[in-house]
Amino acid sequence: MANHKSTDRESGTQLMPKFDAKGLVTAIVSETGSGKPLMVAHMNEAALELSISSGEAHFFSRSRNEIWHKGGTSGNVLRIDDMLVDCDQDAVWLSVTPQGHGAACHTGQKSCFFRRIVTNDGVVTLQPTGEAPLFDPKNVYGS
Amino acid sequence: MANHKSTDRESGTQLMPKFDAKGLVTAIVSETGSGKPLMVAHMNEAALELSISSGEAHFFSRSRNEIWHKGGTSGNVLRIDDMLVDCDQDAVWLSVTPQGHGAACHTGQKSCFFRRIVTNDGVVTLQPTGEAPLFDPKNVYGS
Repeated sequence: MANHKSTDRESGTQLMPKFDAKGLVTAIVSETGSGKPLMVAHMNEAALELSISSGEAHFFSRSRNEIWHKGGTSGNVLRIDDMLVDCDQDAVWLSVTPQGHGAACHTGQKSCFFRRIVTNDGVVTLQPTGEAPLFDPKNVYGS
Repeated sequence: MANHKSTDRESGTQLMPKFDAKGLVTAIVSETGSGKPLMVAHMNEAALELSISSGEAHFFSRSRNEIWHKGGTSGNVLRIDDMLVDCDQDAVWLSVTPQGHGAACHTGQKSCFFRRIVTNDGVVTLQPTGEAPLFDPKNVYGS
């Protein structure tokens, strides 16, 4: 890649992911159709390649230090319908259809973003968006 | 925060951002109404507080090492309509209405995600989504 100028990365047609010092790009996931935000995770080169080749979201788990086939345990695989990359290629955006319970969050919620940041009389709190969970984590992951 | 259990962060109603080693959380931005992905950036504590108090997106620029009031130069301020936090509170999601030219990307595109990752005959390339830019960066930032 040494021969490419930065403008190639910003305007070109070649996938040239800009991995950070840990070899990761940010991966954003929203729901196909609704555009609803579901989750944010990270991908290393292998996870990105697996996601592209399999059509199912693979991430890199920073806590377990390994490739993570999302839904491998819960059955809630994220089928990729569309995949975009941003201007400087340090982030990818996946539009997905969640399989199984239809949930992306390990808490059982459809989306990891299940709380709204609200301000009342100058006090900032979190307010649940009010959606019911789609599965009980105890039944899926064990207690 | 020493008295809070991790479950408070995941299920509680208190904003307890989980900043990384550099003091940052990931900030995802999509367009109100369409749900279209616009950009990804980062916030430190001050940028998060300014975003909440002003209703306009503030980020932390890792390259300039300073608070970045998005649109301060271009006029393309991002008005925050809704703001969510994820389960482990290391990411926030902003639903915004871009002001000015209506563009979020410094390239003049509405969205930083203006290229699709496609595979043809096993070859991965980027394909422009085909939207016309909303401004000419030369006129806004100088050449």
